[in-house]
Amino acid sequence: MLINDRYTHGGDIYRNKIALDFSVNIHPLGVPEAVRKAAVKAMNSIEAYPDPYCTTLRESLSDAIGVKAEYLLCGNGAAELIYQFINALQPKKVLLPVPSFSDYENALNCAGAVPVFYPLKREDGFLPDKSILKYITPATDLLMLCSPNNPTGRCVPEELLQNIVFRCRETGTWLFLDECFLDLADEQSAYSPVGMMVKEDRIFLLRAFTKSYGMAGLRVGYAICQNREMLDRICRASQPWNVSVPAQAAAAAALQCLDWPAQARRIFKEEKPYLYSELSGLGLETVESEAGFLLVSGPADLAKKLLENEILIRSCRNYRGLSECDFRIAVRTHEENVKLIDSIREVIQCTKPE
Amino acid sequence: MLINDRYTHGGDIYRNKIALDFSVNIHPLGVPEAVRKAAVKAMNSIEAYPDPYCTTLRESLSDAIGVKAEYLLCGNGAAELIYQFINALQPKKVLLPVPSFSDYENALNCAGAVPVFYPLKREDGFLPDKSILKYITPATDLLMLCSPNNPTGRCVPEELLQNIVFRCRETGTWLFLDECFLDLADEQSAYSPVGMMVKEDRIFLLRAFTKSYGMAGLRVGYAICQNREMLDRICRASQPWNVSVPAQAAAAAALQCLDWPAQARRIFKEEKPYLYSELSGLGLETVESEAGFLLVSGPADLAKKLLENEILIRSCRNYRGLSECDFRIAVRTHEENVKLIDSIREVIQCTKPE
Repeated sequence: MLINDRYTHGGDIYRNKIALDFSVNIHPLGVPEAVRKAAVKAMNSIEAYPDPYCTTLRESLSDAIGVKAEYLLCGNGAAELIYQFINALQPKKVLLPVPSFSDYENALNCAGAVPVFYPLKREDGFLPDKSILKYITPATDLLMLCSPNNPTGRCVPEELLQNIVFRCRETGTWLFLDECFLDLADEQSAYSPVGMMVKEDRIFLLRAFTKSYGMAGLRVGYAICQNREMLDRICRASQPWNVSVPAQAAAAAALQCLDWPAQARRIFKEEKPYLYSELSGLGLETVESEAGFLLVSGPADLAKKLLENEILIRSCRNYRGLSECDFRIAVRTHEENVKLIDSIREVIQCTKPE
Repeated sequence: MLINDRYTHGGDIYRNKIALDFSVNIHPLGVPEAVRKAAVKAMNSIEAYPDPYCTTLRESLSDAIGVKAEYLLCGNGAAELIYQFINALQPKKVLLPVPSFSDYENALNCAGAVPVFYPLKREDGFLPDKSILKYITPATDLLMLCSPNNPTGRCVPEELLQNIVFRCRETGTWLFLDECFLDLADEQSAYSPVGMMVKEDRIFLLRAFTKSYGMAGLRVGYAICQNREMLDRICRASQPWNVSVPAQAAAAAALQCLDWPAQARRIFKEEKPYLYSELSGLGLETVESEAGFLLVSGPADLAKKLLENEILIRSCRNYRGLSECDFRIAVRTHEENVKLIDSIREVIQCTKPE
């Protein structure tokens, strides 16, 4: 929950009148009807505590992704697992490429860890390169990566990611890899080292149902980790019933709709060229993204002006390394994207000096 | 979640074939239909992230219980708030009356705290007395109380509880008071110091919707605390979206059904004398409970034998200070209670030496 802090994430539809939300990166078609039905049906079972072992969900996941159920940990959204992992690991020295999701740094700060920032540079397309390897030393307890990265949409290239895994093994460094956006990323760029994990006991892969199946409100994510001692430490330090009855049911049903993410990827493939071209035509700079969202630079008041048209985009000014002129825009359906472009055009033309 | 540990709570309906569950202490009539409907309706909004401020829910709660919304913190079930509070306080020396809910001790152990146990004695009806006051010293960082207590069903008497609040104020000791079962407790015994809180900034009152509105599977509880710095510390150390969309909607709807807990209390008032009389007739010892559940002593294999009849009761052998001969039994509807008694009679008569 939040109580004092200003909300600095996307999707604050509760304090803004919103017709179109481009500020959260979820599936443009939302939740599959079968998933919603499963969640509704689960409402007949809410008198019971949720299964603390998430047995049905973990076994369905195991079948779907080919990882043993005993290496799967479910969370109340992937976000919970970030805090649980950092809290269980209690790292001291952490290598953190930035910009990236702000909750990593927040979780580290709360645990008293000291992040060493590895700047992802605009001129490099916000991609890390092999120079990152030399910052992974035996003193590095943890490297926190996100691929595709939030908010840049960039995937860590396969070869580099493999070399990072090797380097982490050499130095005894934990690799936290957030793959919450991977299901919706361009297939030719989306790479997960999940296949390498059989030999690795210091990798924590984070995944979510939120984005891929449009169910952010239900809260369910999972981690893949072969280190049973770490999983055990996380479980001991938190309640047994963190994943609700409808969340478990909906996620298990989502695994019967494995083509749903592909539908989003097809939309993104069509729509990204349209958005690049239109935004560039309006004089806005974009980053070539491999995900279902784009980083765009524009006038500092762009988000504020769009909000007057009930359109929400994500200001990136609270991302380390970005500025008030950076915005993250989800790719949505063509009709919605056209409305966004029309609104941006209106804003740009009104603010352009004569 | 749990991964390695054996499940030691009630309600494991996922790995047992159960016709009647007396192992969890929830409202015998389950969830009000209006609450279920609100949760089902909320399924139309699961594409959005939950409101991280839980604004509607906290404002409804504020109206219902007369506490300012800014002093209310919502959790993914009350259980989450136990861990969050202990994690944020990081107490060193903690006074812990036992037997009580095992997750207090677990959360303390995970935070490296040292509990000093205050034994609640069977011969005193498992009630604390004023001797507890002298164990609250300036060195005591925290006292963790539960009223009515789990699993004994005993309420801390009003005068003693007030003296505990005064003593904690003198010594600068935090008072954690779990009132999750209070809504369903006998009205003449149920006392909350919530009215004293205006002067107190070291009380953390814990409450749940789980029991009072029969919605354990949805996960929503809350805390009342006037210490904004503590609330802030808790919020910073965890994700913003911990209370799901359906949980927030269902809990807000529950606050429109404020007579629901009273219906349970009326059932308990009728049924407890029946259960005491029948259990005692079968030679089983019971503790006079002010809650919707009873502590019963019987043969060590009672729970196992009842399970053969698909009836689940809660073994209390993992409660500190209790034994394998202690069991917690929820009070349910008359028809269900009769079935329980019939089954217990059968078990007792089969195992009685000739």
